[in-house]
Amino acid sequence: MRVIGIDPGVSHLGFGVVDTAARDRLVPVASGTIRTNPRCAFQQRLSDLHCELEKLFHQYGPEHMAIEEVFFAKNVRSALLLGQARGVVLLSAALAHIPVFEYSATEIKKALCSYGHAGKDQIQAMVKVLLGLEGLLTDHASDALAASICHAHSFRPPVAACAGSRGCRKRAF
Amino acid sequence: MRVIGIDPGVSHLGFGVVDTAARDRLVPVASGTIRTNPRCAFQQRLSDLHCELEKLFHQYGPEHMAIEEVFFAKNVRSALLLGQARGVVLLSAALAHIPVFEYSATEIKKALCSYGHAGKDQIQAMVKVLLGLEGLLTDHASDALAASICHAHSFRPPVAACAGSRGCRKRAF
Repeated sequence: MRVIGIDPGVSHLGFGVVDTAARDRLVPVASGTIRTNPRCAFQQRLSDLHCELEKLFHQYGPEHMAIEEVFFAKNVRSALLLGQARGVVLLSAALAHIPVFEYSATEIKKALCSYGHAGKDQIQAMVKVLLGLEGLLTDHASDALAASICHAHSFRPPVAACAGSRGCRKRAF
Repeated sequence: MRVIGIDPGVSHLGFGVVDTAARDRLVPVASGTIRTNPRCAFQQRLSDLHCELEKLFHQYGPEHMAIEEVFFAKNVRSALLLGQARGVVLLSAALAHIPVFEYSATEIKKALCSYGHAGKDQIQAMVKVLLGLEGLLTDHASDALAASICHAHSFRPPVAACAGSRGCRKRAF
């Protein structure tokens, strides 16, 4: 199974693609950060994010997307910005028919460090260990890889499909 | 010029389409509320919003979109939800090549009531007077029509295009 993890943001959006191989071994495929031009109109920046995501989906063909569940932000303004980037990510995935799975920050930390209050440095160190990566990794790419690792470790195929209208998937968040 | 105003939201999204006719007269074209199924997955609800917006764009062919600028919300959770709906609206407009113009709540109120602190009832009454509408109008549809009226009254074609990268439009917000 190929999973793309996303750490959404308007100015910086992190992504990390991993494959699950035999015996639950994880293979890193790609990671990085999409940056948008702060001098461009806001609508254009969201559109650029969508275009770059489309390219990633086309290039790597992920079957699932993993993303961190968000219930808080520094303030309302940050929440509005993050929300708009998140809306673009979720819609881009829907348009590419990629189901999205959401995990709380605590679930992601537990999946990587067995400790729900691990710090950013610990998470990044564990991402590198689990994927056998060396060298620098941006915070955004590290958070995105952490979400994809969490999903690769947690996901079990659903037993039954949702009977809701318009073919909604209860298994996705 | 045909303008679609949008009052974004995940569960209820208001829309209002108006035409500017001779002598700045405004002609109402359509208004209403898009509702999404709360029992469906969140990603599906955002995708449904996008599909319904696409249908509106196809049916009414708006040249511009007007939307209220948002800097605050009841709390961070509301801001995240509103932000995600807003991100979908802005991306849907971008995909349909419809430029988006943003107005503050004060600008919208002043454009309709010449008073920046007008209440919802006053706004709704003025929307009905200006468009010659009778009968009930939902708060969402009224807010969307108010944004489109504000844009129809305020918009003047730009003098020069932006020289930024990727063809960004400085005239849009």
